[in-house]
Amino acid sequence: MLPLPKKFFVTAASAEGETALTAFDGALLKARVGNTNLLKVSSILPPGCEYVPDLEIPPGSLLPIAFGSITSSDPGDLISAAVGVGIQNNSFGVIMEFSGKCSKKEAEERVTSMVEEAFRMRGLKLDEVKIASTEHVVENIGCAFAAVPLYY
Amino acid sequence: MLPLPKKFFVTAASAEGETALTAFDGALLKARVGNTNLLKVSSILPPGCEYVPDLEIPPGSLLPIAFGSITSSDPGDLISAAVGVGIQNNSFGVIMEFSGKCSKKEAEERVTSMVEEAFRMRGLKLDEVKIASTEHVVENIGCAFAAVPLYY
Amino acid sequence: MLPLPKKFFVTAASAEGETALTAFDGALLKARVGNTNLLKVSSILPPGCEYVPDLEIPPGSLLPIAFGSITSSDPGDLISAAVGVGIQNNSFGVIMEFSGKCSKKEAEERVTSMVEEAFRMRGLKLDEVKIASTEHVVENIGCAFAAVPLYY
Repeated sequence: MLPLPKKFFVTAASAEGETALTAFDGALLKARVGNTNLLKVSSILPPGCEYVPDLEIPPGSLLPIAFGSITSSDPGDLISAAVGVGIQNNSFGVIMEFSGKCSKKEAEERVTSMVEEAFRMRGLKLDEVKIASTEHVVENIGCAFAAVPLYY
Repeated sequence: MLPLPKKFFVTAASAEGETALTAFDGALLKARVGNTNLLKVSSILPPGCEYVPDLEIPPGSLLPIAFGSITSSDPGDLISAAVGVGIQNNSFGVIMEFSGKCSKKEAEERVTSMVEEAFRMRGLKLDEVKIASTEHVVENIGCAFAAVPLYY
Repeated sequence: MLPLPKKFFVTAASAEGETALTAFDGALLKARVGNTNLLKVSSILPPGCEYVPDLEIPPGSLLPIAFGSITSSDPGDLISAAVGVGIQNNSFGVIMEFSGKCSKKEAEERVTSMVEEAFRMRGLKLDEVKIASTEHVVENIGCAFAAVPLYY
């Protein structure tokens, strides 16, 4: 089987670029995952996965990651992205992501209520929620990105 | 290299949620993959991959999976998703997925004809097609999800 | 951790199909990745990854791959896809992809300038850019696909 990730952190950042893809790339760099190969996953924190906020990922790594992102090319747009990790001690957790044309505060509220719903559906007890979020006013082409990298 | 999956099953389910993402999450739970990390793949059944219909995936696992899904927030919408696995004995197989605003029967017909086309393009002989499908009438926010999990 | 890819090539092809998904499937076949399980990544060439243009991928393999693709069902549409791999000797590289309703030449120019921007953002020196591109005039349902497969 593919090895179970053992460490995670939460991160979020925004950036401008000359294109949507390079704005996304710039946001990844600021979020400390820009030199890795993102493998988008949907979206469980493995049991025993440890929170390591200053984790460094070697360049080129295949990086399982849950993320939400939004890009906009409408100057003046307020864009936001947020992730939430719901944790029950001694169990697995659930990750939710949200992005949209709203404030960071609204994005945080959205992921929090999605995590709460996911825990209710599973009959889990929510001991803690870790959140990362970002908001950005678009100048030319902007991207807001929030993520939970899962690593080893 | 990444290890070749050795087992598979087919699954489909629908659910309601308070948001599109939690409706998707609910459908994954009903389809028995809700506590895993979906790694979306496109879409070959590896040679020698064995059909194990009651396979259980440990929580948090990185799970290669071919899937189709649709969410709708229009009450009354009929939504469906289907997957088809085309199998030639002693060869690899081809997986096709479909989702749309239609009946389960139509979704099944679509994936079946896509599998047939994929086999014609490859000059393979279609010994068997395994299908999973689901349909759902949206109440508030609904999701239909069909998948072929590939595991070890 | 997941093993770091050691080899890569660049590829691009277009095809017609009876549906969008089978047109995509046909393009993958022509691009020599049609019998694999694409794991879409975003998008770094690992350090030391060797260019092997005639690399063959075993059927069913989980294949990390950066790609861009476009499908259209409007007969007469000119569609194109391109990938660019920016390389600095003795470092990792950056992969950019583009697809759109334009000529192959325009798609190539777009990925080239995206690679240049990605290198400027990282303070890397661009020693070489490898490009693959394809263009296609849609007959019924067509797909243009360009990719950088990363393998072992």
